[in-house]
Amino acid sequence: MLAKRFSDLKPYVPGEQPRDRAYVKLNANENPYPPSEAVRDAISRFDADALRFYPDPDASELRDALASMLGHGVTRDMIFAGNGSDEVLSFVFYAFFDSDRPLRFPEHTYSFYPVYAGYYGITVEKAPLASDWSVDLEALASGDSTGLIFPNPNAPTGIYVGLDRVRSLLDSYPSDRVVVVDEAYIDFGGETALSLLSEYPNLVIIRTFSKSFCFAGARLGFAVANPPLIEALFTVKNSFNHFPVDALTQKIGAAACGDAPYYRRINAEIAQTRDRFAAGLRGAGWEVLPSLANFVFARKRPHSGRRVYERAREAGFLIRHFDYPGISDFVRISVGLPADMERLSAVLTGL
Amino acid sequence: MLAKRFSDLKPYVPGEQPRDRAYVKLNANENPYPPSEAVRDAISRFDADALRFYPDPDASELRDALASMLGHGVTRDMIFAGNGSDEVLSFVFYAFFDSDRPLRFPEHTYSFYPVYAGYYGITVEKAPLASDWSVDLEALASGDSTGLIFPNPNAPTGIYVGLDRVRSLLDSYPSDRVVVVDEAYIDFGGETALSLLSEYPNLVIIRTFSKSFCFAGARLGFAVANPPLIEALFTVKNSFNHFPVDALTQKIGAAACGDAPYYRRINAEIAQTRDRFAAGLRGAGWEVLPSLANFVFARKRPHSGRRVYERAREAGFLIRHFDYPGISDFVRISVGLPADMERLSAVLTGL
Repeated sequence: MLAKRFSDLKPYVPGEQPRDRAYVKLNANENPYPPSEAVRDAISRFDADALRFYPDPDASELRDALASMLGHGVTRDMIFAGNGSDEVLSFVFYAFFDSDRPLRFPEHTYSFYPVYAGYYGITVEKAPLASDWSVDLEALASGDSTGLIFPNPNAPTGIYVGLDRVRSLLDSYPSDRVVVVDEAYIDFGGETALSLLSEYPNLVIIRTFSKSFCFAGARLGFAVANPPLIEALFTVKNSFNHFPVDALTQKIGAAACGDAPYYRRINAEIAQTRDRFAAGLRGAGWEVLPSLANFVFARKRPHSGRRVYERAREAGFLIRHFDYPGISDFVRISVGLPADMERLSAVLTGL
Repeated sequence: MLAKRFSDLKPYVPGEQPRDRAYVKLNANENPYPPSEAVRDAISRFDADALRFYPDPDASELRDALASMLGHGVTRDMIFAGNGSDEVLSFVFYAFFDSDRPLRFPEHTYSFYPVYAGYYGITVEKAPLASDWSVDLEALASGDSTGLIFPNPNAPTGIYVGLDRVRSLLDSYPSDRVVVVDEAYIDFGGETALSLLSEYPNLVIIRTFSKSFCFAGARLGFAVANPPLIEALFTVKNSFNHFPVDALTQKIGAAACGDAPYYRRINAEIAQTRDRFAAGLRGAGWEVLPSLANFVFARKRPHSGRRVYERAREAGFLIRHFDYPGISDFVRISVGLPADMERLSAVLTGL
């Protein structure tokens, strides 16, 4: 009874969520700090009666709040909000990437990209990383392509490439093909590309509330781009599901935007914890890639990623490893609370 | 910069949501009663800290609560929950309908069906309604098709077809092609087809919380079918967006399932209000189709639907009309609170 297109699907496998015991969950890059007071207040003050109405399909209040928070000349008509950045990315793929030329992205990157491509029958090509594991933007832009996408910082490496190099990429790439910079992890130390939007009509920046805004549970992500591209994303949304963002999620998203100082503070703490944790591992002979995200990507030869994952699990920590060629000896560890990271450091440095 | 597939999109146009003055909103089939106490409690007791984690991708607690509420031998593995029934329908189209034969649905029906079909490149064929405006199931099943879909009761007519006829349709149709019965409006007087699931492996039933459960604002819909079809829907979801249903929405959905008597009571009140309102219009010379939904579809010749819509709007009521051939003299009026419907009745019977 399945459609033929079904056979092309390769569903994404997210971080496990076992319930057999209490684990410190460091496998999904969730934020270890709670949402801000304004988010709490928005939930407790929410009028349940309002739920009987459909949400605002344009998410106007939320997009106004986002524009105020983002600065860089971003206006409401430059923002598209969706049910997590996963949905936003999916709409971006549908709207901008054709099937006759490949979409190019880095060899080791967010594993949902090939999944969306498969969903819409878009061919893909992977560009090798540079020898220091950073995204090689020249390799990415080489050859013919329908568009480009890369996270900055990249996942799962955590490595950030500077805005000067992003600008060079955009200068070298055809201006009528879309370049997506996925800034899911930008709030942990990198510099956003929002300032480039005024110069590059083909630039699309993706953001999420799941990491730096502490609400993976209320699905909210957004794209920032020039108005013609944002209009196209609205057309796709309105062809699929008019109301993907819950009314309450819109409210608490807008509330969170007003608490930007709180989020800056906790994300700066996460960055400090990350650097301390990475230094500890390095001191014990680990190779730790230089991360500006809320996770580290590290290995201790000759241990396999699976071996390290299992050791951490025995000690009550969930982390991730990837059975992919080239990175199977690495683990990705989300940065949690300082005390938890010290305990995990003690476990791993004893390996 | 747009992909070629983009040109096939015809976005759905939902009921307007003007903000220029206070209207009685009877244009989106929303429920006029508030969600139940258990929903209020679930919101006010919700632990904001939990938002930092991704929601349960399997929606296990919610699906258990749904199985308990639904009865008819429905188990958790027969339920798939999504971000509104719109998203669930979209995944159903992706999973089960091919492009080499047409998907067939009634001529006048939920206008999102051709939209999804266009989104995935599925060809469509419309089967004419019977002369009494009911869905003609024999016409629907005739010819070659990749699958069938129809709402029961149908929208925008409100007309319900009996289970005996649904059973005959399923008996006559190839058992390896999917038949979708969209029961968005089943809780206002019709008899559900859930009892047929044990006999028909190709039957998919779609439900939503937006109408009879009073929470259009928190996006939640679900499909009920036999486990192999539900597994296929999970595969599609996991290829698109692992976590489409907010954590809080899962909680309040489960809470609502425990308050089934409340929802039965308010939906019975809506059915009574509907019948009283329809009788009033008929008494004034209106043609009102026999509805078992939470709306009525009616006309008063020689007035156009647009004219009636405009008169209602002047009086402070938002209703819908459709500029489609064959139904342009009808209006669709959602059933609101008794006092509002009496006021609207006075306006319309004066036409």
